[in-house]
Amino acid sequence: MKAIADLCIVPLGVGVSLGKYIAECERVLRKSGLKTRLHAYGTNIEGEWDDVVAAIKQCHEVLHTMGAPRVSSDIRIGTRVDRVQTMDDKTRSVEEKL
Amino acid sequence: MKAIADLCIVPLGVGVSLGKYIAECERVLRKSGLKTRLHAYGTNIEGEWDDVVAAIKQCHEVLHTMGAPRVSSDIRIGTRVDRVQTMDDKTRSVEEKL
Amino acid sequence: MKAIADLCIVPLGVGVSLGKYIAECERVLRKSGLKTRLHAYGTNIEGEWDDVVAAIKQCHEVLHTMGAPRVSSDIRIGTRVDRVQTMDDKTRSVEEKL
Amino acid sequence: MKAIADLCIVPLGVGVSLGKYIAECERVLRKSGLKTRLHAYGTNIEGEWDDVVAAIKQCHEVLHTMGAPRVSSDIRIGTRVDRVQTMDDKTRSVEEKL
Repeated sequence: MKAIADLCIVPLGVGVSLGKYIAECERVLRKSGLKTRLHAYGTNIEGEWDDVVAAIKQCHEVLHTMGAPRVSSDIRIGTRVDRVQTMDDKTRSVEEKL
Repeated sequence: MKAIADLCIVPLGVGVSLGKYIAECERVLRKSGLKTRLHAYGTNIEGEWDDVVAAIKQCHEVLHTMGAPRVSSDIRIGTRVDRVQTMDDKTRSVEEKL
Repeated sequence: MKAIADLCIVPLGVGVSLGKYIAECERVLRKSGLKTRLHAYGTNIEGEWDDVVAAIKQCHEVLHTMGAPRVSSDIRIGTRVDRVQTMDDKTRSVEEKL
Repeated sequence: MKAIADLCIVPLGVGVSLGKYIAECERVLRKSGLKTRLHAYGTNIEGEWDDVVAAIKQCHEVLHTMGAPRVSSDIRIGTRVDRVQTMDDKTRSVEEKL
């Protein structure tokens, strides 16, 4: 089952500068072979459901290893069985109507 | 890795009355053996990370089987390695300070 | 316009024990006169759209006053114009189908 | 109070092709004068808190006017008082560490 997701991950207990933690998660996501795109409040992720959630789990584990005692994520994840749709399809279907 | 999650799942393309779809997801979550608690905008879920995300995947699959061409979820999921914390601990830690 | 919302608010840069911050937000929400219900990963809020978002803004302001340099919220908010629906209606419409 | 937000808005009861509804929300956001950026699972929005939430309310109203009986949004919204930070700052602080 294909999925398009969006991950906003927040390490708690490590102060307010989260850039290096988010960068480490980006590296995890990129190494996973999934298609990803960073934006200002999260990261789009496209791939098989199992691969997407496995990569997100790995992000939690990496942040704990980096010293974060708590990690909280907000994940949007969508699946559809009527047709194949990519991240690019989704933005294009809006942009072509503007 | 233990997780506490909150799932807000929305089937698209099946009209506005979503009660029967959400009820079916509740049945999936309860059969999974995870601890769950329904509220007005989602369901709290407590358990092992892998079991939690497997149950959520099954909810997507069930809604597709019921006829929803698209399913979109908003998931909050938290992990902590400093100590064990249950859903009840979380609400109690707030309520005892009110 | 009536709204049913769910607020998950996270102060950043104040450590991992967030109970006292969440409790203070609960006090803000209760004083606002809105109907609220705390759960393990957020708080349901029911009322007029403007009152709901004003109360959430006040929660951010209060957490900043308490010393949090950053505050990040995840808010679910729903409106409907086909009929009146309360938080209790929402949970009941699922529970009666279980 | 400045805010950076991310809006994922879903009209319910209007089928599965949501592109024209999301495009109409994009027009509302752009007319509002706020800085926005569309991605595959939502739209980043930057501006004063009151302007951001007013624009989101208008998006709900517009979708109802277009015929959606129900509208459900997932909103991430962050504020910080330690320093000024833009959407571009947020992505740059991650990208320069990759």
